[in-house]
Amino acid sequence: MTAPVPPLQLSQRWHYAKEQAISFLMQQAVENPQVISLAAGLVDADSLPVAETRHACERLLADDLAARNALQYGTTAGAVRLRRQILNLFAELEGRSPADLGITPEQIVLTTGSQQLLSIACEVLLDPGDICLVSGPTYFVFCGNLNGVGAEPIVIPADEHGMDTDKLESALQILEQAGQLSRVKLIYSVSYYENPSGICLADERRKRIVELARKYSKSHRICVLEDAAYRELRYDGPAHPSIWGYDATRSSVLYTQTFSKSFSPGVRIGFAVLPADLVKPVCDRKGNEDFGSPNFNQHLLAMVLESGEYRSHVDQVCAAYRAKRDAMLAAASEFFSDLEGVSWVRPHGGLYVWMSLPAHIHTGFSSELFRTAVAEGVMYVPGELSYAGPRESVPRNQMRLSFGVQGVDGIREGMQRLARAVRKIMSGR
Amino acid sequence: MTAPVPPLQLSQRWHYAKEQAISFLMQQAVENPQVISLAAGLVDADSLPVAETRHACERLLADDLAARNALQYGTTAGAVRLRRQILNLFAELEGRSPADLGITPEQIVLTTGSQQLLSIACEVLLDPGDICLVSGPTYFVFCGNLNGVGAEPIVIPADEHGMDTDKLESALQILEQAGQLSRVKLIYSVSYYENPSGICLADERRKRIVELARKYSKSHRICVLEDAAYRELRYDGPAHPSIWGYDATRSSVLYTQTFSKSFSPGVRIGFAVLPADLVKPVCDRKGNEDFGSPNFNQHLLAMVLESGEYRSHVDQVCAAYRAKRDAMLAAASEFFSDLEGVSWVRPHGGLYVWMSLPAHIHTGFSSELFRTAVAEGVMYVPGELSYAGPRESVPRNQMRLSFGVQGVDGIREGMQRLARAVRKIMSGR
Repeated sequence: MTAPVPPLQLSQRWHYAKEQAISFLMQQAVENPQVISLAAGLVDADSLPVAETRHACERLLADDLAARNALQYGTTAGAVRLRRQILNLFAELEGRSPADLGITPEQIVLTTGSQQLLSIACEVLLDPGDICLVSGPTYFVFCGNLNGVGAEPIVIPADEHGMDTDKLESALQILEQAGQLSRVKLIYSVSYYENPSGICLADERRKRIVELARKYSKSHRICVLEDAAYRELRYDGPAHPSIWGYDATRSSVLYTQTFSKSFSPGVRIGFAVLPADLVKPVCDRKGNEDFGSPNFNQHLLAMVLESGEYRSHVDQVCAAYRAKRDAMLAAASEFFSDLEGVSWVRPHGGLYVWMSLPAHIHTGFSSELFRTAVAEGVMYVPGELSYAGPRESVPRNQMRLSFGVQGVDGIREGMQRLARAVRKIMSGR
Repeated sequence: MTAPVPPLQLSQRWHYAKEQAISFLMQQAVENPQVISLAAGLVDADSLPVAETRHACERLLADDLAARNALQYGTTAGAVRLRRQILNLFAELEGRSPADLGITPEQIVLTTGSQQLLSIACEVLLDPGDICLVSGPTYFVFCGNLNGVGAEPIVIPADEHGMDTDKLESALQILEQAGQLSRVKLIYSVSYYENPSGICLADERRKRIVELARKYSKSHRICVLEDAAYRELRYDGPAHPSIWGYDATRSSVLYTQTFSKSFSPGVRIGFAVLPADLVKPVCDRKGNEDFGSPNFNQHLLAMVLESGEYRSHVDQVCAAYRAKRDAMLAAASEFFSDLEGVSWVRPHGGLYVWMSLPAHIHTGFSSELFRTAVAEGVMYVPGELSYAGPRESVPRNQMRLSFGVQGVDGIREGMQRLARAVRKIMSGR
C-alpha cells in the first residue's frame, strides 16, 4: 500500500568518484577466501607493534593529566607534542638539523593516514577541469581523488628512474603553447618505492621537478604533491633526498608521509609538511571534514617516538619486508625466468614488485588471466588500474604484486600459482 | 636574487568554506588565557574515561591476535565488531530489539566523529545551488559544511519545541510553487538538546518532518539528516524517540551520533545509520577521503561496550553534566533575573544554555558586549554564528553558553562576569 520510495539524487561529486576498483578487489577477496592475495595493500601482521603500543598505552594512561589531555579534543592541525617529534624525524630523514629545515612545527599538519592529505590537497588546489600531472603508472587511489574533484590527469611516462622529466617539460611546453597553463595546478609524485612500480625517483629528476614547477609557475603557483608513504621502508640502495629538499623557497612542495606502513595502519596517522601559506587552507578544509584526527592516537605515537622504540621498530619492519621482498624476487626468478617477454622491477624498498607480461597478455579484471589466476588460487592488482587518463591508451599487460601481507611461504606459493596461470594463458591452453 | 614566489590559486571549494568562526574563537582563547571560556565546545575533563580506556587497552593488547587485528588496516565502513555493538546500543536507545530495527549492521558506518558524516552527507547529496532546510538557530559547523559544497541553507524558525514544522511545510510549498523543489535535497535537524539552543525537538514534530520529507519527495528523495550527537547526555525529561524511528521505510533519514561526548572526543568515533542505498555512496566518498577511520580505536571502543563499562560511564558523565547544568541555571537566576528582557532556555540535556538579551544588545565578535565580556574575563559564542543564510535577517542578541569545560565554580564565576558585562552595556556605561 505504501508508495514506492523516490530515487536518490546524488551529487555530481559522487558521480565523479563512484568507480572504485578497490571495492571489486575486496569483494573478490571476500568471495574467494582460499585465494592467496598478492593484491591486498595490508601490512605484515607479524611485525605489527603490539608491544610498543602496549608500552605507550601503559605510560600514557598511567599519567592522569597526560591521559586526560589525550582523551580530550585536540586541534585540527594535530597535537603539538607529536608535531615536534615529527619535525625531528623529518629532519633526520632529510639529513639536516630541525632548525636547518627552514620550517616551523606549525607547517606540519596531522591527518588520518597520508590518504586524507592527498584528498584535502585535491579539494583545496583543484577545480573541475584543472590539470594534475602524474606518472604512468601511479598510485591508483590518487586517481580516484583526481576524479573526485573533476580534475584532469595528464600522464607523464616513467622509466626505471621514475617520471621522465624531459617528457614532463614537453607536456608543460605543449600546455603553455595551447594556452592551457592556467589549468595546471599540481604535479604528483610517489617519490620512494612507488606504489605500484616499486621505483625510486632518481635524484636529478627530483631536482628537475621542482625547477619545472617553478619555471612554469607564471600567473600562479604550480605545486608539487610529494607522496613519501614508503620512504622509511628502505631495504637497500641509497637514502634519497626528498623532492621537498630541493625546494629552497619551501613554497612549492606539499610533502606527505604516513606511519601506517612503518608503524601501524590501525593507528592511522599521516603527516604533511606544507608551504606556510597552505597551512590555513588545508586546516580550513580539514576543519570542515572532521576538525581533527584522533588526539589519543597522536599522543600515543608521540610516546613511541619519544621513547626511541619507533626507531628500533622501523628496523624490525624493514628486516621483515626485506626477507619477503627477497622471497618474491627469488620466486619470480624460479617460476617466471623461462617465460619470454616477462620482466619485473627489483625494488629497493616499499611493498610491491611490478611485473610486465608480453603486450598481448591482458591482466584486467575481465581478462582470461585474472579469472585463471583466481581459479589457481592467487590474486593480483591489474596494472591498468594504476594509469590515470583515457582507458584506451593504457598498457594492459602489467601486474602489481604485493609482498606485504603473505609470509615467505605464501609468497612463494602465490608466485608459483601465478606462474601457472600465466603459463596457461601464454600457451593458449 | 630569487624571483618572488607566484601566488597560490585555491579552488572554488576552498573559497566557499574559508570563513570559519571557530578559528577566531580559538585565537581569542589562546590570546586571553585568563578568560573563563563558556564558549569552548570541549567536554568535561574530570569525567574523561581514563580507567575505562586503560582496561580496554590492557585487554586488547594482551590478546596477541586481537591486538594485531586492531593494529592492521580496517575497512572503510569500520570494524564489524564495533558495528554490532552499536546496533545493540542503538536498538536500546530506540526501545526495540536489534532484530526489530529493520536494518543490518552493514547500514551502520563508522566515521571520525559524527562531524565526518555531516561533511560526507553534504558531499554526496548536495550540489552547488541545492537547498538544505535547517533550524534557526542550528549547529554552526554544519553551516560551514553547507557553504563548503556551495549549497543554500533556508532557515526555518524554531520555538521552544524545535523547528516549526508548519513553517517547514510553508517553505516547501513556496519552493514547490516557485518551481524550486528540484533543488531541495536535505532537511537537517539536531534532534536532541540542540547545539546551540539546548532544545529537544517535540515528538510530533519528529514525525511531521519525516512525513513532509516524504510528501515533497516527488521527482527525487528529500533526505533528513538527523544529528543526535547529544542524545545520550540526558539529565531529566523523557527519552524521546528519534526522527529516524518514524521513517518506516528506513529510506529517508540519515541518523548520526557520536561517542565524543558520551565517551571521549580524543578517541573520536562517530557512527551513522544509513538508508541501504546510501551506504555505498557514503563509503565511496569516505574511501576517497581516508579509506577508514582508525581501526585501533574502533576495537578499543568495542571492548568498552562489550564489557558494560560504557553504560556505567555514561551514567557518570550525565551525573557530572547535570550538576554543571544546574550550576549554570542557578547562576543565571542569581545574576540575570533582575535584567529586563533577558531570558534563557532550561535544557534537559546536552552542553549548552541559550540566552537571549534585549534585541538592541548585540553579541557578535565586533560588539561592545563581546569586548566587554573578554575584558571582564569571560567568553561565549555569539548566537548569530548559529544562523545560516543572509547575515542581515539574523537575530544579533543571543549567546551560546557552554557548561562543558568549566567546573561548577568556574561556571558560577563566568556567569557572574558575564552578567557584569551585560549590565554595563545595558546601563550604557
